Amino acid sequence: MPHLDVPQFLGLLAVLLLAAKALGAAAQAIGQPAVLGELVAGVLVGGSVLGLIDLQDARDPRNEVLHFLGEMGVVILLFEIGLESNLRKLLEVGGVSALVALVGVVLPFALGYGICRLLDLGNLVAIVAGASLTATSVGITARVLSDLGRLQEPESQIVLGAAVLDDVIGLVILTVVSGLALGEEISALGVAKITAVAFGFLIATLLLGRLVMPTLFRLASKHINLPGTPTMLALMLALGLAWLAHVAGSAHIIGAFAAGLLLAGSLHAKDIEKGVASLGHFFVPLFFVTVGAAVDVSVFNPFDPANQRTLLVGSLLIAGAIAGKFLAGYAPFWFKGKKSVIGVGMVPRGEVGLIFAQKGLETRVFDAGMFSAVTLMVMVTTFIAPPLLKVLFPPRPQTPKPPPPEGIEDLVTEA
Amino acid sequence: MPHLDVPQFLGLLAVLLLAAKALGAAAQAIGQPAVLGELVAGVLVGGSVLGLIDLQDARDPRNEVLHFLGEMGVVILLFEIGLESNLRKLLEVGGVSALVALVGVVLPFALGYGICRLLDLGNLVAIVAGASLTATSVGITARVLSDLGRLQEPESQIVLGAAVLDDVIGLVILTVVSGLALGEEISALGVAKITAVAFGFLIATLLLGRLVMPTLFRLASKHINLPGTPTMLALMLALGLAWLAHVAGSAHIIGAFAAGLLLAGSLHAKDIEKGVASLGHFFVPLFFVTVGAAVDVSVFNPFDPANQRTLLVGSLLIAGAIAGKFLAGYAPFWFKGKKSVIGVGMVPRGEVGLIFAQKGLETRVFDAGMFSAVTLMVMVTTFIAPPLLKVLFPPRPQTPKPPPPEGIEDLVTEA
Repeated sequence: MPHLDVPQFLGLLAVLLLAAKALGAAAQAIGQPAVLGELVAGVLVGGSVLGLIDLQDARDPRNEVLHFLGEMGVVILLFEIGLESNLRKLLEVGGVSALVALVGVVLPFALGYGICRLLDLGNLVAIVAGASLTATSVGITARVLSDLGRLQEPESQIVLGAAVLDDVIGLVILTVVSGLALGEEISALGVAKITAVAFGFLIATLLLGRLVMPTLFRLASKHINLPGTPTMLALMLALGLAWLAHVAGSAHIIGAFAAGLLLAGSLHAKDIEKGVASLGHFFVPLFFVTVGAAVDVSVFNPFDPANQRTLLVGSLLIAGAIAGKFLAGYAPFWFKGKKSVIGVGMVPRGEVGLIFAQKGLETRVFDAGMFSAVTLMVMVTTFIAPPLLKVLFPPRPQTPKPPPPEGIEDLVTEA
Repeated sequence: MPHLDVPQFLGLLAVLLLAAKALGAAAQAIGQPAVLGELVAGVLVGGSVLGLIDLQDARDPRNEVLHFLGEMGVVILLFEIGLESNLRKLLEVGGVSALVALVGVVLPFALGYGICRLLDLGNLVAIVAGASLTATSVGITARVLSDLGRLQEPESQIVLGAAVLDDVIGLVILTVVSGLALGEEISALGVAKITAVAFGFLIATLLLGRLVMPTLFRLASKHINLPGTPTMLALMLALGLAWLAHVAGSAHIIGAFAAGLLLAGSLHAKDIEKGVASLGHFFVPLFFVTVGAAVDVSVFNPFDPANQRTLLVGSLLIAGAIAGKFLAGYAPFWFKGKKSVIGVGMVPRGEVGLIFAQKGLETRVFDAGMFSAVTLMVMVTTFIAPPLLKVLFPPRPQTPKPPPPEGIEDLVTEA
């Protein structure tokens, strides 16, 4: 295998990041979440369009590094989601959120599984596809509600609580599904064991962490005077717990999520969030680009009879994905607010859905067609939720927008 | 070649970062620069001690990724150094700094080259070794002077100006030396051409950049509303110019340095510095760790007769390295301040010296013994300067220390 040509690879990274950021900004300019643009950027640079990267080529040393960079992106993303979550607040919102989350997992899974089985797809394929329908992108939902100035309304609180809970449940499902996809036996005991390990790891980590972290940070603050110490401690915790989760038989991203939860709500969470955000701006788009690059656009050509099945599966999954989450919003039938807002707020699958799709492809449970069908479902659900929410839940113009985070005003002043 | 086991690699990264940060903090605790601890951490985890990583193993897929992460570290480090530099201020300090820088390049090079030739080493080995003696670590020097509260004194300004100029000259030397090391012909015309390309690239980049950047940033600020935009634009510029410098026949790190210089002193430089610093805290220590891991400690055993030559070469290089820079401080003989402070301030070779050593090893101009001798020189010069400076230039206790950058106080409050 040839060795990595570092300067060339640096140029490639510049192009990938530029494409991701430019299309992310373009997506935002037309009122869509940036992640959608990053995915499209990945599709464009991928093997089936421009061919700047070809992730199928196992002999290309760049793919080893790109794969790692993408995985670092997922780890940092899930750490950030964990950091934004708050177990205590979630417990306060309580009943309604839990019911929405539970129905919003069970119903889409049943619909996805049922659709796949009706289409004569295998049991395992149906399980992974169903699982990918259970995800909710807390990042996208929170961002849209915040942009609309509606974050503090009861509907928003319920959606956020359910989305966070959904992330925990989704990660457990991911571990179970990963175990199944890797050929482990599908026994009730096995599923219970994986669930117990995943939940057990999370609970043990949170309990132990709450005991150990204050001492650790006290020691660090006493003895370490390096800049960026809290961020680097947090990152090491995320990387270390990701590895421990894997060793304990759980998914490594649960470890990263647990690290985030552990530090969420602590006094230094804001500082860590800022420091990790800079790392996230570099790594996370590379994850979406590598996911997008794995999409083979040729399967979307409706005039090729070979693709009609992929489009059929994709369309039915989209219908199931939207119906499942939308109906979940009506589960708390006694709630007097806009139940439609809750349902639509749960629709975008975003990054978590893509992780399922990627896992399906990686473990060869999904073929290229099935991967594309699920990716199509993720893209469409992510795409339609923001404009729908804007219609159902008009923005409040009086809410002042927070200042841009990194002095973009300065650029205007100078220019 | 086996594929990278991502969760295991994440655990390895956590351990490498922990070792680097812990030993960096330990180095600081005994009054030494953190970079020294990071180097020692690399030596400890490397093939000749604990063997957590073995960079000599070409079949290990982790090495491809580690090599890339280290290179990203150099790119970010040189971008940061460029960002801290200021061509205009450098021109103001003018004559004295330029003289110190010039003598501080010529004298150590002549001493290093002469010592190697007297020891019957080859012409190319002597050139690369001499070149490694020309470097000055602006980062370490600036950090020490700032810690002593003496940054605004004339001696400090001269040292800083000379160190910055030294970085530019050093990078040009690196390009020339890299060309020579890669077997290009050693003709006066060839050297002149490489020098012209290196300087030409830098000048063209800075001139073109000054024209293009305001428009670019104006467009970006108008159309892009993503968090972290200035930092990511800066990073893309650094990566893109690194690639362009390589394509133009210069060293890729000159491109990263030029990107930093281009943005230095701009209104948003502070924001970019903050954002890039978080990336630097992750990538830069991994560079020092990989450099340290390349050191074979067994060559330092004085009881093994095979090593006595390495230690002899190393000791003589140390003497030449210290004498050359120290005497350079006396070049502006009319200057009435403490000339000894100027000389000692120029002594630490730090990261730039290591880049030369690494380049020598990479191009097989250095064997393991020679690499270790030069690394020893870098470590000793980096090690002795801070305590010597403290003695010659006692700290001013009345200068208030700047607040820690990332809320380390919060940790104390919480703990």
